Amino acid sequence: MFRKPWRLNVYRPYTQKKLTYSTINSFLFLQLAAQVLDDLDDEDIGFGLVDSKKERAVAKKLGLLEVDSIYIFADDEIIEYDGELAADTLLEFLYDVIEEPVEIISNDRELKGFHHIEEDIKLMGYFKSAKSSHFTEYDDAAEEFHPLIKFFATFEPRIAKKLNLKMNEVDFYEPFMNKPVSIPGKPYIEDDIVSFIEEHDRPTLRKLEPHSMYEIWEDDINEQHIVAFAEESDPDGYEVLEILKEVAQENTENPDLSIIWIDPDDFPLMVPYWEKTFGIDLSSPQIGVVDVEDADSVWMEMDDEENMPTADELDTWIEDVMSGIIYPGDETDYNHDNNDDDDDDEDE
Amino acid sequence: MFRKPWRLNVYRPYTQKKLTYSTINSFLFLQLAAQVLDDLDDEDIGFGLVDSKKERAVAKKLGLLEVDSIYIFADDEIIEYDGELAADTLLEFLYDVIEEPVEIISNDRELKGFHHIEEDIKLMGYFKSAKSSHFTEYDDAAEEFHPLIKFFATFEPRIAKKLNLKMNEVDFYEPFMNKPVSIPGKPYIEDDIVSFIEEHDRPTLRKLEPHSMYEIWEDDINEQHIVAFAEESDPDGYEVLEILKEVAQENTENPDLSIIWIDPDDFPLMVPYWEKTFGIDLSSPQIGVVDVEDADSVWMEMDDEENMPTADELDTWIEDVMSGIIYPGDETDYNHDNNDDDDDDEDE
Repeated sequence: MFRKPWRLNVYRPYTQKKLTYSTINSFLFLQLAAQVLDDLDDEDIGFGLVDSKKERAVAKKLGLLEVDSIYIFADDEIIEYDGELAADTLLEFLYDVIEEPVEIISNDRELKGFHHIEEDIKLMGYFKSAKSSHFTEYDDAAEEFHPLIKFFATFEPRIAKKLNLKMNEVDFYEPFMNKPVSIPGKPYIEDDIVSFIEEHDRPTLRKLEPHSMYEIWEDDINEQHIVAFAEESDPDGYEVLEILKEVAQENTENPDLSIIWIDPDDFPLMVPYWEKTFGIDLSSPQIGVVDVEDADSVWMEMDDEENMPTADELDTWIEDVMSGIIYPGDETDYNHDNNDDDDDDEDE
Repeated sequence: MFRKPWRLNVYRPYTQKKLTYSTINSFLFLQLAAQVLDDLDDEDIGFGLVDSKKERAVAKKLGLLEVDSIYIFADDEIIEYDGELAADTLLEFLYDVIEEPVEIISNDRELKGFHHIEEDIKLMGYFKSAKSSHFTEYDDAAEEFHPLIKFFATFEPRIAKKLNLKMNEVDFYEPFMNKPVSIPGKPYIEDDIVSFIEEHDRPTLRKLEPHSMYEIWEDDINEQHIVAFAEESDPDGYEVLEILKEVAQENTENPDLSIIWIDPDDFPLMVPYWEKTFGIDLSSPQIGVVDVEDADSVWMEMDDEENMPTADELDTWIEDVMSGIIYPGDETDYNHDNNDDDDDDEDE
């Protein structure tokens, strides 16, 4: 499930049967993206198609491994785009690709902006200047992960002091965590930074983003995902998100725990499908476990909107999931807890 | 300019020549929205088309005033949808329409969520209970503006105390303002609240949102808009946004000042068009004045990314705009200030 749908099929991405992609439909969204970029005279972004049957040798030479995938060639890097097949999402991603991999923080307001970013994995380094060889190593590491992981640096002692950073030191920030971890062994070469990131790139809590949705969905643990639906712009959803952050901060050392937060506002075309598949009502927050193979799921009992679980209750529930006491596909649990809401709706 | 484009024309919305809408293209996005909603068995949302030539009488009877517009019939209200003609944006708006017009805040985390909402006009009332006749008047007022203006209420004395709200009192929050204004003359009837909102519904600083972009764009002052492009998720953009908020908070009493903040991340398909039309580089923040008729514009000089204007400098610049010293279309100013950046790009 959650296989790559083309734009015009996006309302049925979970469908079990293999999608037959029509070439015409498939590339409508790429055509739109290319047309839009055509207005940018000064940017050199080209679009190409490789026929997986006729041009196998070309694909191999270019390093294209997966059929029906989009690869971005930027400088010396090949970036696989593993996001929603929609022109707006792809373009936003491309705009990020063409930005510098390391962003420099030079004053307090920018520092506030840096702290404001909490949904992405981010790193912050303190270096003498852009000419420092240690900065070059950092910049090279950034290119490996750009634009999915955000790299920042400062050359200002005053800013470094506020961040508790020593010269040539880099801090690693997991999403939604207040405190960073300093990468050990400074000064680093590129590989030190790359290895550290690769070991820590599955956060305890992460947000499903349109530009990387397939990558995240495919990164399951034992074929399961703990999923939380919560609308950040809604006070109920915000409440659940705060509880999730608390639980994630307490369990950040647990390598087997990874919760995916989905803001339904980011996926309007998916909402009806999710509601039907999981038997839930997404007008209020939901927390559950989903089997990524057959879309079986169990959802936490939440009495009503006024009565969200506490961090402790959620913690206990998550422990039960991880120890296997609660699991998707159990006949007695499945699609059962949330029927109260449905009954109310039918009265209307 | 900024006339309603259909989805497949969205990359040329500013075009001067009148768009000829092809019926087939026009309703592709409506069809997609309808298909998606088809999965929602329990929601009664139907889609209809009225032919503006053949069914003039029907249109009149339904109260449909504008051709090429989308009207939503919800309970007793007719809501004009004045947003991007894209299925995802329309659906997100529809999900908001079917929610309750007043959201109840009952604990501290929800209150934090309420404070977290800063981009919308929002109101908060304190009432004895949902059965209070004063709450009913508030709820009726909410229906008039729902879902574009957000209405909240609390029945908890503890929460009301934190908000400094007296019984049956309603506070009005302008976007990006820390302090609300209490609506005078409590307890209110519906009309008191409606009139107050109608008098205060053009904020000093407002965000261009896809679901209401045409409505906001058409609400110009003397055929001009002060426009700020700033990416919230980027520290440079965040810095400019903080400065804008400061300026807006200082000038909130000025009825002639209304700044539109555009986050380019929300409009990826528009970025190349804006860059070309306004002669600016949207990879860094930009502040300017735009003539809504001919798209002439003047942009504030910003030396480089490290050197954003201070709140005072921005304030002076805005005063010059409002007194007419700076205006779009001036040969010596127009499309001239920002050439430094362009020159740099050409070196690459």
